[in-house]
Amino acid sequence: MKQAIVLRRDLQMGKGKAAAQAAHAACEAVLSIIRSNNSEWSRWLDSWLSQGQKKVVLRVESEGELNRVYEEARAAGLPASMIEDAGLTQLPPGTKTAVAVGPAPAELVDKITGKLKLY
Amino acid sequence: MKQAIVLRRDLQMGKGKAAAQAAHAACEAVLSIIRSNNSEWSRWLDSWLSQGQKKVVLRVESEGELNRVYEEARAAGLPASMIEDAGLTQLPPGTKTAVAVGPAPAELVDKITGKLKLY
Repeated sequence: MKQAIVLRRDLQMGKGKAAAQAAHAACEAVLSIIRSNNSEWSRWLDSWLSQGQKKVVLRVESEGELNRVYEEARAAGLPASMIEDAGLTQLPPGTKTAVAVGPAPAELVDKITGKLKLY
Repeated sequence: MKQAIVLRRDLQMGKGKAAAQAAHAACEAVLSIIRSNNSEWSRWLDSWLSQGQKKVVLRVESEGELNRVYEEARAAGLPASMIEDAGLTQLPPGTKTAVAVGPAPAELVDKITGKLKLY
């Protein structure tokens, strides 16, 4: 099991900003599972938690690429979150910054994010 | 409501590594609330979620400072998580990397982390 967190590098976010967006995306994907009552997703979550919550942080270079990751994850039936920044600092309101895919079986996550580079 | 995420800057983690540790800490603190059956914490969580999950990422320069933040948060009755790295990459196994405090009322979080600088 793993969770992939995908950040836009083209936004040139500061380190703290990037970390906050990653945390938003990761938590939101986990919460979406808890809210979903999807029993398969719940099993994935429990399994991922018991294995130490493996996370990998990856990068894309555009909003289009970020959208592509999110849409492919949803189409594949995986839990996923899309984060838009409130725009109080650094970025215009509504800027899409981050996506999390999973927790889900690693091979399913890799089908969508496997070609992305580390952030 | 807010959640403070505290990262050790003395470890000189790469950007992706730091983002992953921040995400671990944030998720773990949220999950600790869900597992706790503490009704006050649950109210804080709901309120924080409805307000857009405000997060701030802060820094300390040593394991001792990180321990201090975690212990003060717990002593104050706040939800908090301490993250130790599995040590598969970059860091020795068991290295303490990050703490999250909250979600909780901002004034209670600030009592503990208010003097820390942005990461």
